[in-house]
Amino acid sequence: MSCSFGEKFRITVFGQSHSEAIGVVIDGIPAGIKLDMEKIGKFMSRRAPGNNAYSTKRKEDDIPSIISGVVDGITCGAPLCAVIKNNDQHSKDYSKFRNLPRPSHSDFAAHIKHNGFNDIRGGGNFSGRMTAPMCFAGAVAMQILEEKGIRIGAHIEKIAGVSDSRFDPVSVNSDILASISEKNFPLIDDGVKEKILTKIEEARLDGDSVGGVIECAVTGMPAGIGEPMFEGVENAISQAIFAIPAIKGIEFGNGFDCADLRGSENNDSFIVEDDKIKTKTNNHGGILGGITSSMPIIFRVAVKPTPSIAKPQMTVNLETMTAEELIIEGRHDPCIVPRAVPCVEAVTALALINLI
Amino acid sequence: MSCSFGEKFRITVFGQSHSEAIGVVIDGIPAGIKLDMEKIGKFMSRRAPGNNAYSTKRKEDDIPSIISGVVDGITCGAPLCAVIKNNDQHSKDYSKFRNLPRPSHSDFAAHIKHNGFNDIRGGGNFSGRMTAPMCFAGAVAMQILEEKGIRIGAHIEKIAGVSDSRFDPVSVNSDILASISEKNFPLIDDGVKEKILTKIEEARLDGDSVGGVIECAVTGMPAGIGEPMFEGVENAISQAIFAIPAIKGIEFGNGFDCADLRGSENNDSFIVEDDKIKTKTNNHGGILGGITSSMPIIFRVAVKPTPSIAKPQMTVNLETMTAEELIIEGRHDPCIVPRAVPCVEAVTALALINLI
Amino acid sequence: MSCSFGEKFRITVFGQSHSEAIGVVIDGIPAGIKLDMEKIGKFMSRRAPGNNAYSTKRKEDDIPSIISGVVDGITCGAPLCAVIKNNDQHSKDYSKFRNLPRPSHSDFAAHIKHNGFNDIRGGGNFSGRMTAPMCFAGAVAMQILEEKGIRIGAHIEKIAGVSDSRFDPVSVNSDILASISEKNFPLIDDGVKEKILTKIEEARLDGDSVGGVIECAVTGMPAGIGEPMFEGVENAISQAIFAIPAIKGIEFGNGFDCADLRGSENNDSFIVEDDKIKTKTNNHGGILGGITSSMPIIFRVAVKPTPSIAKPQMTVNLETMTAEELIIEGRHDPCIVPRAVPCVEAVTALALINLI
Amino acid sequence: MSCSFGEKFRITVFGQSHSEAIGVVIDGIPAGIKLDMEKIGKFMSRRAPGNNAYSTKRKEDDIPSIISGVVDGITCGAPLCAVIKNNDQHSKDYSKFRNLPRPSHSDFAAHIKHNGFNDIRGGGNFSGRMTAPMCFAGAVAMQILEEKGIRIGAHIEKIAGVSDSRFDPVSVNSDILASISEKNFPLIDDGVKEKILTKIEEARLDGDSVGGVIECAVTGMPAGIGEPMFEGVENAISQAIFAIPAIKGIEFGNGFDCADLRGSENNDSFIVEDDKIKTKTNNHGGILGGITSSMPIIFRVAVKPTPSIAKPQMTVNLETMTAEELIIEGRHDPCIVPRAVPCVEAVTALALINLI
Repeated sequence: MSCSFGEKFRITVFGQSHSEAIGVVIDGIPAGIKLDMEKIGKFMSRRAPGNNAYSTKRKEDDIPSIISGVVDGITCGAPLCAVIKNNDQHSKDYSKFRNLPRPSHSDFAAHIKHNGFNDIRGGGNFSGRMTAPMCFAGAVAMQILEEKGIRIGAHIEKIAGVSDSRFDPVSVNSDILASISEKNFPLIDDGVKEKILTKIEEARLDGDSVGGVIECAVTGMPAGIGEPMFEGVENAISQAIFAIPAIKGIEFGNGFDCADLRGSENNDSFIVEDDKIKTKTNNHGGILGGITSSMPIIFRVAVKPTPSIAKPQMTVNLETMTAEELIIEGRHDPCIVPRAVPCVEAVTALALINLI
Repeated sequence: MSCSFGEKFRITVFGQSHSEAIGVVIDGIPAGIKLDMEKIGKFMSRRAPGNNAYSTKRKEDDIPSIISGVVDGITCGAPLCAVIKNNDQHSKDYSKFRNLPRPSHSDFAAHIKHNGFNDIRGGGNFSGRMTAPMCFAGAVAMQILEEKGIRIGAHIEKIAGVSDSRFDPVSVNSDILASISEKNFPLIDDGVKEKILTKIEEARLDGDSVGGVIECAVTGMPAGIGEPMFEGVENAISQAIFAIPAIKGIEFGNGFDCADLRGSENNDSFIVEDDKIKTKTNNHGGILGGITSSMPIIFRVAVKPTPSIAKPQMTVNLETMTAEELIIEGRHDPCIVPRAVPCVEAVTALALINLI
Repeated sequence: MSCSFGEKFRITVFGQSHSEAIGVVIDGIPAGIKLDMEKIGKFMSRRAPGNNAYSTKRKEDDIPSIISGVVDGITCGAPLCAVIKNNDQHSKDYSKFRNLPRPSHSDFAAHIKHNGFNDIRGGGNFSGRMTAPMCFAGAVAMQILEEKGIRIGAHIEKIAGVSDSRFDPVSVNSDILASISEKNFPLIDDGVKEKILTKIEEARLDGDSVGGVIECAVTGMPAGIGEPMFEGVENAISQAIFAIPAIKGIEFGNGFDCADLRGSENNDSFIVEDDKIKTKTNNHGGILGGITSSMPIIFRVAVKPTPSIAKPQMTVNLETMTAEELIIEGRHDPCIVPRAVPCVEAVTALALINLI
Repeated sequence: MSCSFGEKFRITVFGQSHSEAIGVVIDGIPAGIKLDMEKIGKFMSRRAPGNNAYSTKRKEDDIPSIISGVVDGITCGAPLCAVIKNNDQHSKDYSKFRNLPRPSHSDFAAHIKHNGFNDIRGGGNFSGRMTAPMCFAGAVAMQILEEKGIRIGAHIEKIAGVSDSRFDPVSVNSDILASISEKNFPLIDDGVKEKILTKIEEARLDGDSVGGVIECAVTGMPAGIGEPMFEGVENAISQAIFAIPAIKGIEFGNGFDCADLRGSENNDSFIVEDDKIKTKTNNHGGILGGITSSMPIIFRVAVKPTPSIAKPQMTVNLETMTAEELIIEGRHDPCIVPRAVPCVEAVTALALINLI
């Protein structure tokens, strides 16, 4: 099913950008977990739109209301349903997109798929807003994973051609990941922040947008997790990752760079360290044969520039089948990369909790 | 489950490199399909090891025997089971890997996962040999897809740093894909063949290996196929692709390049052509919001260099927990990229047939 | 997952008897369906508790609020989420059951399963109240099925040993089913109504309860629906039926009676009628080899007497591990059979819509 | 998928009565299990056709050949595939059934479902022969369950109206179940054996067949197993049970009898015995709210008389659409109940191992 993920910790996301509410049901959540709602709220605020230059002006408090599955703050084993009200929709903005599909948006594909009955307002359930319930479910999963010593953290690896440093794939650890996630604008090298913000602001002033790359690491994964073939860690993470709108690529370990190496350069020798078996290098990104090796899991994802831009664009009127110029008004992030960082962490948590 | 894929056209792959046989069961195959066994055999021979410089000397005839699901050459609606005998195993070669995991192989991860009971011979069911039944199932799926006008084709986009041309993402068509798949060494620009073969031969003589990139295209996909969120075309293809050993990354459309573009450069304007709605460019790789747009699907995957190399490597003896030098003897492809090309096509077919 | 059902029209039920709300998400509902909310409401009112002798006094308006998946009354292809508020809970009634599991209730099993964290209030998500969202989802499914000419109807076959007539398994049709579902107390032979009501009232006055049997028929099913072995019509219906609390048995066609017949008595000869192939008798209940034969589907389910009775009962105090007398106070149906009738229809609709 | 069952210990059954072979793949079998092939063989021989009065004369050695997933007799974590050759088919017998569907057989339904491409020979993959690989997989599951102290046993509860005793639902234990499964003709009260055999022989001489009831018990199940709603123990067992051809009903605990009882009669009081919580009676059949209570699981299934009988029957010629008399020749069990007993145990094991 399209909006469900996972077999053991199964989530089903519902809602559209402008429906009465959006939310998620988690079926398979263990009983007896005391939810840290403050931590969950803090995590979700990393995704929430703010007042800074790079995010939409839409005001969302995005506080999820838990309507089932929890008694006195503790999970009871029944499915947990969390609902987030939609308060601040401007539905009128979107009526014209019914016949004028926005370039590189889901509008056209959804129109064909649903015979024109798709909810066009705000992108319907293709909206980036649907990542809010994903983040809620991911935050719950992360809490459970952290109790097992598993930590997930991501940062902006690149925006508009300006690159951050990368995680050291061998030495990255939970402290490094924790400090990254404290940051309002998660970079390893804060020195590039100004340059990136300038690029984003330039795009915004041009009525344009910019893309980027996010890098994610997972530490504390024991060896032996994941199944071979179709249920490996790479299969599961990539299936989850492409649920985030605007992701167009994923690479694990040294990824596409491995294509240019020789085996002797790319292979990671096994070594003993602190009586544990590790690898000297970590080109494999913590995954061998689809299964964890106990080294940090490392992957990067490509985020396309926001397709909603203020600049005039050409499209086709679906009714008249003629070319037409389209002006998209309203508020749109000139860069969604920073807000996508917690989304990447969240769906990674959902993928991993189902493998453990 | 690890070795199963798909909900409607569900395959379950079984076997190990050195078990009595390997094979696949296809549950959900429609009744009434006359299997073109000659075409299937031809497709499988593209994956089979040969006598050329870049592939293992292991002799496999790899002719699948269909033991159920087909009556007089026509499917009867019951699950189709195809079995391939393992004839030419040299099981003695592998005994030492039990305690000496090969770098960047699944040995160590599988050892931990299965408490040392994993079949170490030839990599067990992590072996590249397991792609043979995947290719059989994929060939069956491709036959069904081709009857619907859907054509899948892939080529070597890069080996050892030497690049082929890429598909034109707008004009690629079924004729181009058909002609590529006729080639023994599938390149768009045959002019780079000699250079690539030289690189592979150099690596082989050095006891080393090389990696590469494969590009795949799908033409004839109608618009509106795929589900939003977790069951989109990208989710499904990537989940299937990472079942092929040695794949470390996947990107759709212009992939990681989109990260450096502005929205105005990356967006694909809609146009009308032959009374049909298309896009002027195809940076989106035929997929918008997880759903097909009717433009060709385009993606590339990164293939790491064969981890089995003749050069001495360092590993850890799992029994003594001390460093030890490892010499891998036997036959191993210095480059698996050419043989992985039909595998990419096959699993793509499996992903798509489950979405249609 | 425990609270999810179906692969194509997948429902996930959430909530507990005394949580803030209960509800259901339907993932996979086609776009473009105009929901007949009046009909859905009427169907749900058949399950709702009333003021009659045989049902609880708990007042529920049970009007579902649709918070996603519908735009202007028409489904948009996104998951449909319907929420029913819980207004009239008396949570104090239940605190003592934490340590005093009610005989033949889920209390004890749920306590062990969830380590004592299960929501004990009103039976938590084991409550009969959870059939309200099931009925909502079933009513939506029935609307879609009815557009295809498929009609589902059930009646009270027996309560407290007093039997109604049975459907004629050959001649039952959609008109008969429609007229049954109009009835407040669905019997074929209304002549036994008074006798049954008397039996229920006697049990109520004794602080006791009674059980019964429900018979369900489905007309208009084309032949050839269902899959052999594990996904047949019987497998699917029975998996769905046992989601209704208090069901302890199911039989298709002539069911357990077939055990006493000879093949020559039990076999249903094929005949031609109106140019269609039918069977002369219908002992097979419309299902052969797990697949529909085009004859009416017929099955009966056994409903145990409500386990919550006013009479004193013996149980064990889980804390002290000593025997203790238990008095269950509060409102409980002396007979749940009438209210279970629409529940049986609803889950049957859910099973069938996933097979079509 | 129709021929697959289970999420963790997933089996896929393949083959047709007259295909080259039949078999099963088990995906998800843990590594490190030493298969007791002698025990498995003994179990399978209980299902195999013999030379006694009540079973077909078809000679099957039915020895499964394990072609993957096992190394030196121990599972290696890869999918286990077992294949049973079909040696003794008489395919000519069946050609006429293509147009003359046998009453109360799957022929007609399968013909419609598969557009006439279904394998008609011997009932194709609807054949009772397909229970052989189910029994193999079940025997493997039973071995794993027995190591956890869980024991499954079934007996003939009734054949041709002659009843055996029933299990005492409170005191039945693993020793009783073990002794039952030793018997060639599994009855609790061997005194009724002759009477039953006479009834079967009478039916055979009349060219007819008889049905019956099988009762199954499971001991040693810990409390708390199973999920509420759609994944409870009853849901899982019933979904599995209806995969056995000829089963038309299932009831748990006291089953349909509960319909005639009052709550005070039907409820099972909790008691303490040997410091464990049990119930005084076991009308609930070991399952409360879909979850095990630690009491023995008890259920009964109705088996219809073999539909293949020698007596002339009326059917319809699908080509001419006219009534035609049908004479079924060849070998057919006058009663399949005894051979269905191990099948019931096997699929129960498959259902339970997926819940644990």
